[in-house]
Amino acid sequence: MSLSRTRRSTLTRLRERARTDSADLHAVLDAGLVCHLGLVRDGAPVVLPTAYGRIGDTVYVHGSTGAGYLRVADGAPVCLTVTHLDGIVYARSLFHHSMNYRSAVVHGTARAVSEPEEWLDALRAIVEHLSPGSWEHARQPNPRELAATAVFAIGLDEASVKVRTGPPGDDDGDIEAGGRWAGVLPVHTVFGVPESSRTLPPDAPIPEHITDRRVG
Amino acid sequence: MSLSRTRRSTLTRLRERARTDSADLHAVLDAGLVCHLGLVRDGAPVVLPTAYGRIGDTVYVHGSTGAGYLRVADGAPVCLTVTHLDGIVYARSLFHHSMNYRSAVVHGTARAVSEPEEWLDALRAIVEHLSPGSWEHARQPNPRELAATAVFAIGLDEASVKVRTGPPGDDDGDIEAGGRWAGVLPVHTVFGVPESSRTLPPDAPIPEHITDRRVG
Repeated sequence: MSLSRTRRSTLTRLRERARTDSADLHAVLDAGLVCHLGLVRDGAPVVLPTAYGRIGDTVYVHGSTGAGYLRVADGAPVCLTVTHLDGIVYARSLFHHSMNYRSAVVHGTARAVSEPEEWLDALRAIVEHLSPGSWEHARQPNPRELAATAVFAIGLDEASVKVRTGPPGDDDGDIEAGGRWAGVLPVHTVFGVPESSRTLPPDAPIPEHITDRRVG
Repeated sequence: MSLSRTRRSTLTRLRERARTDSADLHAVLDAGLVCHLGLVRDGAPVVLPTAYGRIGDTVYVHGSTGAGYLRVADGAPVCLTVTHLDGIVYARSLFHHSMNYRSAVVHGTARAVSEPEEWLDALRAIVEHLSPGSWEHARQPNPRELAATAVFAIGLDEASVKVRTGPPGDDDGDIEAGGRWAGVLPVHTVFGVPESSRTLPPDAPIPEHITDRRVG
């Protein structure tokens, strides 16, 4: 399915980096761990990192009902951005230095989720995105915990996806001049060795949904 | 030096995660590679990933003079956020699942830099932040390239820094109940093996400012 082409979701420059299929959007979102959520408060932007999850063409975020920024979010315009930095691009010229990356910028309106079934599905999507396997393994929320958690939905129908890959785009003159390095220093996000909580028995096994986890 | 305490830079909840010294702010900014810059356009937030650099208590971003979002930026309220995800926090309960992270949220007003000396210093700071060593190694910008690059300054006098470290904060009842894993899966950002551009001679050495580079 093609992504919509509104003014704000259409790239004005470097259009060759644009991806216009919703599968590309889903791939960038699904590979991320944290998004940056933008809101407007008193006329000024606020950008906060937060967890998220996706179900079809809706992305969900959650937060404490006591969080100040969430009180203003229902019905408000929001922007949800997920960025993967894949490499530092070193060119012969400073001007052509760049980054390899994949980014998704979603423009939408936050909708407070109140219907219990969607609310629980959304919470599950957020949990399973951040920590796959935890929905089955961990204790489910009790009524007090549920009441403390607000969930917001953002539709994916207006979004832009940008991807840059490959070597630097040096000018011919700089390539011919020689003497300077050009290339890419890859950047990876990796998981380390799981650290069991000290409140566990010393011989407590680490479950496979933790030990087998890989990024992406 | 203490960070200022305005309403929007003061945490309303989980205050124990707040850091209030400018050295903490500088450390979070300096350890990052990409920031997320928030602007307001037509009343809606826009959040874009971009490179940045810091000099003292000013952070700088740059972009093409042809970029649509930069045309609206001079004098506009902005929010610049840098986030490091350090770990996925698995608790016995879903409710206490969390992330270990360091984040800096800078609230300010973008100022278009026009004075040549500050402009060049800012560009150098951005380049050396993204690719340390490149300022000396790569070809300096020519007048055409300089004319195509806009630089904006954002003061660091209004910012909040949040840090979460350590194991999950499980409820006593969940710890006593047993049977569920709790702990932290660390998340690291690492550099891979540098990939030389194919337009280089096959025996071109990779400079030390690339091979010796480490994250942080």
